[in-house]
Amino acid sequence: MSKKIAGPEIERLIQLLARLPGLGPRSARKAALALLKRREDLLVPLSEALATAVRTIVMCPVCGSLDTVSPCTICRDERRDREVIVVVEEMADLWALERAAVVNGTYHVLGGHLSPLDGIGPERLNIAGLLDRAASGPVKEIILALNATVEGQSTAHYLTEQLAPTGVIVSRLAQGVPIGGELDYLDEGTLAAAIKARKRI
Amino acid sequence: MSKKIAGPEIERLIQLLARLPGLGPRSARKAALALLKRREDLLVPLSEALATAVRTIVMCPVCGSLDTVSPCTICRDERRDREVIVVVEEMADLWALERAAVVNGTYHVLGGHLSPLDGIGPERLNIAGLLDRAASGPVKEIILALNATVEGQSTAHYLTEQLAPTGVIVSRLAQGVPIGGELDYLDEGTLAAAIKARKRI
Repeated sequence: MSKKIAGPEIERLIQLLARLPGLGPRSARKAALALLKRREDLLVPLSEALATAVRTIVMCPVCGSLDTVSPCTICRDERRDREVIVVVEEMADLWALERAAVVNGTYHVLGGHLSPLDGIGPERLNIAGLLDRAASGPVKEIILALNATVEGQSTAHYLTEQLAPTGVIVSRLAQGVPIGGELDYLDEGTLAAAIKARKRI
Repeated sequence: MSKKIAGPEIERLIQLLARLPGLGPRSARKAALALLKRREDLLVPLSEALATAVRTIVMCPVCGSLDTVSPCTICRDERRDREVIVVVEEMADLWALERAAVVNGTYHVLGGHLSPLDGIGPERLNIAGLLDRAASGPVKEIILALNATVEGQSTAHYLTEQLAPTGVIVSRLAQGVPIGGELDYLDEGTLAAAIKARKRI
């Protein structure tokens, strides 16, 4: 005998907010309440921002990232070094590298990693586009900035093989002890990698 | 020399998402990425749900809560007891009481509490409407379900005085040890209230 406390439109809003990463059912309710209470400075502008996103977000035909311009902001930025392509699994990785401001080249977003068990083969990723870019144009080096996971590394292995015929330099991120990392808290794999790749001082 | 990594529409979306309670700058970015990646099952439906909210959310002329119908779902529910009005500060309190399923009456949402230091006097709250409801119609009891804070309790005090001439019974929530509460972790105010309002077994 549960009673309805609000119209179905509000229930639907809460359900959708709860699908956002970082929001559970409880915080989705709080977010919905904030939206209802703050109509002019939150509900209306967020509604408009999402409508704009629906209308304008496109996948960049060059690198596969998502943006509101095509090609994307980074691919059309003339200050970027066209000789280097940094390959990432997801948009989130691209944003993380941009926040660190360590890349002056362009990117290539695969849209995930190879995962045969989940039925994700090379044809499901944005790999053909990468091979095209590597074979044509001014590209000299491709940096594989993939996750240091089993899937990320097997994807890197596959890409290295595919890119070999192009003659482009292929590199990967260094592995080792993270800055600020305490040895006592690091896993064995990281410690093994750090020992193996040790550098003479 | 910070470079732009995406169109201003995406930056704006992240900024607005970060205003939602429970989302900081970092989780707002994650949420925006999820929206961009999950266009059909998240971005489009959430955009539509917010547009619907903008179009349909109204303040209930009876109780002051927000809903997509007017009067609100609770005020128009004929199974509700019209003799009891539960007064709350915010919509969130109404939803909390509804989740607990402990109220069969209707509600009255004040929209906050008295706070002279912040310039919030009685005229800024939905108090006139409450006095009207108390003076007319079948109302027999008004339960003040306000926060057990200084502001909540002084608001309750003010309402009690204002409601006295109407002859309606005015009550407030019991104060004491919360269910599951361990005495060792409770503040002195709660312990004092629990001792003072002790009940003979």
